[in-house]
Amino acid sequence: MSADLRIAVVGCGYWGPNLVRNFAATPGIKVACVCDLEPSRLEDIARRFSVGRTTTSIDDVLGDRAIDAVALATPVATHRSLGEAALRAGKHLWVEKPLAGSVADAEALVAVARERDRCLFVDHTFIYTPAVQKMRELVARGELGDVLYFDSVRVNLGLFQADANVLWDLGPHDLSIAHYVLGRRPRTVSAIGVRHVDGTHENMAYLTLQYDDSLIAHFHLNWLAPVKIRLTLIGGTRRMLVWDDIQTVEKLKVYDKGINVARAEAPDLESRRRTLISYRTGDMWSPQLDQTEALSLAARDFACAIAERRAPTSDGEAGLDVVRALAAGQRSLDSAGVPVPI
Amino acid sequence: MSADLRIAVVGCGYWGPNLVRNFAATPGIKVACVCDLEPSRLEDIARRFSVGRTTTSIDDVLGDRAIDAVALATPVATHRSLGEAALRAGKHLWVEKPLAGSVADAEALVAVARERDRCLFVDHTFIYTPAVQKMRELVARGELGDVLYFDSVRVNLGLFQADANVLWDLGPHDLSIAHYVLGRRPRTVSAIGVRHVDGTHENMAYLTLQYDDSLIAHFHLNWLAPVKIRLTLIGGTRRMLVWDDIQTVEKLKVYDKGINVARAEAPDLESRRRTLISYRTGDMWSPQLDQTEALSLAARDFACAIAERRAPTSDGEAGLDVVRALAAGQRSLDSAGVPVPI
Amino acid sequence: MSADLRIAVVGCGYWGPNLVRNFAATPGIKVACVCDLEPSRLEDIARRFSVGRTTTSIDDVLGDRAIDAVALATPVATHRSLGEAALRAGKHLWVEKPLAGSVADAEALVAVARERDRCLFVDHTFIYTPAVQKMRELVARGELGDVLYFDSVRVNLGLFQADANVLWDLGPHDLSIAHYVLGRRPRTVSAIGVRHVDGTHENMAYLTLQYDDSLIAHFHLNWLAPVKIRLTLIGGTRRMLVWDDIQTVEKLKVYDKGINVARAEAPDLESRRRTLISYRTGDMWSPQLDQTEALSLAARDFACAIAERRAPTSDGEAGLDVVRALAAGQRSLDSAGVPVPI
Amino acid sequence: MSADLRIAVVGCGYWGPNLVRNFAATPGIKVACVCDLEPSRLEDIARRFSVGRTTTSIDDVLGDRAIDAVALATPVATHRSLGEAALRAGKHLWVEKPLAGSVADAEALVAVARERDRCLFVDHTFIYTPAVQKMRELVARGELGDVLYFDSVRVNLGLFQADANVLWDLGPHDLSIAHYVLGRRPRTVSAIGVRHVDGTHENMAYLTLQYDDSLIAHFHLNWLAPVKIRLTLIGGTRRMLVWDDIQTVEKLKVYDKGINVARAEAPDLESRRRTLISYRTGDMWSPQLDQTEALSLAARDFACAIAERRAPTSDGEAGLDVVRALAAGQRSLDSAGVPVPI
Repeated sequence: MSADLRIAVVGCGYWGPNLVRNFAATPGIKVACVCDLEPSRLEDIARRFSVGRTTTSIDDVLGDRAIDAVALATPVATHRSLGEAALRAGKHLWVEKPLAGSVADAEALVAVARERDRCLFVDHTFIYTPAVQKMRELVARGELGDVLYFDSVRVNLGLFQADANVLWDLGPHDLSIAHYVLGRRPRTVSAIGVRHVDGTHENMAYLTLQYDDSLIAHFHLNWLAPVKIRLTLIGGTRRMLVWDDIQTVEKLKVYDKGINVARAEAPDLESRRRTLISYRTGDMWSPQLDQTEALSLAARDFACAIAERRAPTSDGEAGLDVVRALAAGQRSLDSAGVPVPI
Repeated sequence: MSADLRIAVVGCGYWGPNLVRNFAATPGIKVACVCDLEPSRLEDIARRFSVGRTTTSIDDVLGDRAIDAVALATPVATHRSLGEAALRAGKHLWVEKPLAGSVADAEALVAVARERDRCLFVDHTFIYTPAVQKMRELVARGELGDVLYFDSVRVNLGLFQADANVLWDLGPHDLSIAHYVLGRRPRTVSAIGVRHVDGTHENMAYLTLQYDDSLIAHFHLNWLAPVKIRLTLIGGTRRMLVWDDIQTVEKLKVYDKGINVARAEAPDLESRRRTLISYRTGDMWSPQLDQTEALSLAARDFACAIAERRAPTSDGEAGLDVVRALAAGQRSLDSAGVPVPI
Repeated sequence: MSADLRIAVVGCGYWGPNLVRNFAATPGIKVACVCDLEPSRLEDIARRFSVGRTTTSIDDVLGDRAIDAVALATPVATHRSLGEAALRAGKHLWVEKPLAGSVADAEALVAVARERDRCLFVDHTFIYTPAVQKMRELVARGELGDVLYFDSVRVNLGLFQADANVLWDLGPHDLSIAHYVLGRRPRTVSAIGVRHVDGTHENMAYLTLQYDDSLIAHFHLNWLAPVKIRLTLIGGTRRMLVWDDIQTVEKLKVYDKGINVARAEAPDLESRRRTLISYRTGDMWSPQLDQTEALSLAARDFACAIAERRAPTSDGEAGLDVVRALAAGQRSLDSAGVPVPI
Repeated sequence: MSADLRIAVVGCGYWGPNLVRNFAATPGIKVACVCDLEPSRLEDIARRFSVGRTTTSIDDVLGDRAIDAVALATPVATHRSLGEAALRAGKHLWVEKPLAGSVADAEALVAVARERDRCLFVDHTFIYTPAVQKMRELVARGELGDVLYFDSVRVNLGLFQADANVLWDLGPHDLSIAHYVLGRRPRTVSAIGVRHVDGTHENMAYLTLQYDDSLIAHFHLNWLAPVKIRLTLIGGTRRMLVWDDIQTVEKLKVYDKGINVARAEAPDLESRRRTLISYRTGDMWSPQLDQTEALSLAARDFACAIAERRAPTSDGEAGLDVVRALAAGQRSLDSAGVPVPI
């Protein structure tokens, strides 16, 4: 029987307390330490949750032999340096998305984790949601037929980030989901963005991925919308689906809808080019989904991956692929939407 | 007191019967004649509605001195030739959207109408919907502050058109709405489209309009979606709104939400660049909207414009502007999304 | 080959024009005449629809040998006298719901129709909606298991009727639906109602039907609600369903949900009374429904029933059963909710 | 400056852990002890939250001088005995709803709390939700005019309770809300209920409250529904509102809708009885609501009430009024719906 994984959570801003709450509730994980530069945040955490101890010193964390893993919920710019230090100190590493702010930094983290044989986990929480798991399963089993497009809208009145634009803030969600569900990587990325407030980053962007065939993926990312929308459409030749993540029930709906293409058998060229399209509009089906919080499932995968000495679903490579797409998107955004190959 | 406007409806496919039904129900208009090449369609119309007479001959219509106006619900490719003939025969002209399939054809129709002093009406029905009227009013009165973006999704499992791609089929709706509501015209148009069935036209497209300042408009147009969505977001510095045209009530919601930007008064450059952003999340307000069918309001505007010898709201110039944007969008679509100036 | 059914529509208030529009659009039916006391209403109808002729005289209608059937869209108080006159004049009869204002009047109409061998149709339009047809089919096939309850909410800001309370105005919809879907008739009816405006009728009522077993049906009827709700839940031992008639799509949803009851095999009485209940929460399924307007399907059933000399689905007996339940409900309402046997 | 309120949570089934989580997160409260008969539940709580200590002995809790208050999340049948013991031990008392299983028990708890001068709080969490607070404010300020009706639907596929029927399980929510929002108490209660599983309690019930005037309140309570609905309508002479608690945003909508009643000034009796009703259908307005969890606001009110030596909003009297209505409802339910005076 294996002992609990003793984890230290570093950073108690917006995301850190969610990590503490979920790690504390996950069998097999023990929150051994919480670290933040701000003592008042540590006090608040300690008052609410059962955490081993708190500290304002990252060195204190890294030097503690009793800590098996470090979870970084710190600004992106710190991911490489803190992450490398943790890996080199022998800790397994959980990193808030995105893995890093550049391809070089992301590659370095992947390389160090491999060299030190430590588990590197990127917190793309969404791929652990039961809806995303089900979509991947439907695509992989061919239930949708050939996938034709993936369209996502992720907008809200969100926090203008000081250290990232909306592409780097919201893009990791949709890119990790698209990569995971489609099981493919795009050939080119293009992006158009706007900054509506001088001195800030782009607060809305449209991101388009093109693949080797006619598959297309498109994301609307927006921090300045009056309502929260998280809506994904996937069109296939056999079926189509809608994932409405704002709904509390029936988040995923699968439609037996589509087109049938019949090609006339005809002697002349003109006739053969004539295509007859008919529509199928059948029933809708909404699979029952597990209600477990995705972050809890992510925590379990991290702990199990370490115990079983396997890669987690959301590993360093997955995180690196997302950073590559973000970096290409940023170059396109900086050049008025020219498609940039990955 | 003026006599009824005697109108002939030409074309009884999908849209023509709607014209007949609404014209017949509009005080001041009389459906004097219905014309189609297919006698069975004429029989069906005559069985249901009170129409003066039916004919399979367009010349019969054009030569009838008792007919004041012609409404074309025929394929786009016929708009210029039939429209010019009607105008030259002295008829006022109602044309189904888009006005024409090319800028040249649209310009020709506008020129002939002006030369013959006839009313040229383009059936951009949506701009007569009470929601669109209200949005224009809110923008014009400055209720939204500076408009930052206009985002629209118009998708459905729709009819693959034989003579047009999705841009020319659905684009006229959103372009006419954006032109009307914003009261401005874009500087460049870019478009990305995909055809998923060989031998057909593009069945989905993303269209982006950029303006002289940071205003951006973006449309998702799709014939191959599992659900019908018609959702428009408009973001402004003071308020933002959502128009959900699929809803039967509360289609338009205005949010007292946005960001406040405070700029520190500071001596050094670095400090002056610091921007403080705070959020406003206030109440939502949904104005009561008139329930009248938009096509009926359009019919009244057409009849009144003729009676009052004024231009209708949706006149030839409005129709030409939409065709210009469509033509630019098509060029962008043909060159992988390069922005094309209008 | 049978000739068209020549029908006269009597009464052009709220419902009459809908009858004219649908009859005119139904193959096999011809609107031969429209009758109303108000000439301006007749003019309006004649301007819009293809109707044979108009008249302000009911005797003119009844005496016209060329008229096969009469459709009454007149106040309830006139149904018996006008209906009997039409039947005795040899016409088939279509009557707007409810069939009559009393059980005696309804029985009289049923008796005269039988005696004269004419078709008597009661316009319970809702039972022709595809959703109601599907619900009846699901219940009849046992897909829901034993039906446990039927709960309906039908509220709106509606027209305060001068000649009826909300029970007689809205109740016929739900009673006809419940009778048709459940295929059973209740044993007792109880009703509680309130009149909020002096000098008017009850504007809201709660109606409860109890059956021979534990089945219960309950309706909330309300003319004074801020929103329009038409929501029906049916619970069964195997499955449950929701019919949301306000939705434009996915009106009917069938849930693979319910409870499983296991009874412990135990020697003593106390143990045998222990019941183990577990929950099933499976998928949801929304069947594709026909989009045809229900009134059009009702018109076809009326025409076909006459042609085939069979009873229509919504025949006089069905109408009489609804009036019996309404009359019992009224007695309960007048005595503060005491259950009244039917 | 006052010290933290040291609270012991007794009972860690469904509701207890929510109390622990919210008390732990509330400034001014410290979870000093958690008590349950089941050690494994205590271990789970201690692993997740910062709790002083755990115990399986209630006497241990009651005898601990360092504990200021006891929160009971135990079966209703235990409320009186455990609650009285806690009050007599000098503890302030928080009791999960309903306060007790009988009027006598509820009265006893209120009496002992008064005698011992301890704070008695009944956990009617819903009255602390910002939507309910806003509704009470709108009613109290006369924004709705005279309130005409209160209609609520609270259904779900819920846990069949072993020790209570659906009236006692779900009824306390709606009764406490109606009492609080309306600021009035009903004159009579009637209830119809059904038990669909032998050997269990009623799993659905319709509860009606009648007041001294034409105000009526009605609740649909159901454990066996396929979907979760929590929808309340309140109709007033000036405005009406809808509270849809399932929505994550725009839970509360206020409609400027209603009827205007004009009474003809006329010489004869008949004319004076004629009433002219016209409709107002104006805008809808959805006030921005605080997002704080209601249980957290309840916890603060409990702590503040003790510190300020005042009664909390949800005090023993409020809890007793709910039990009185439940008991009357139960008598009505047992006699087929006969109205029972309170």
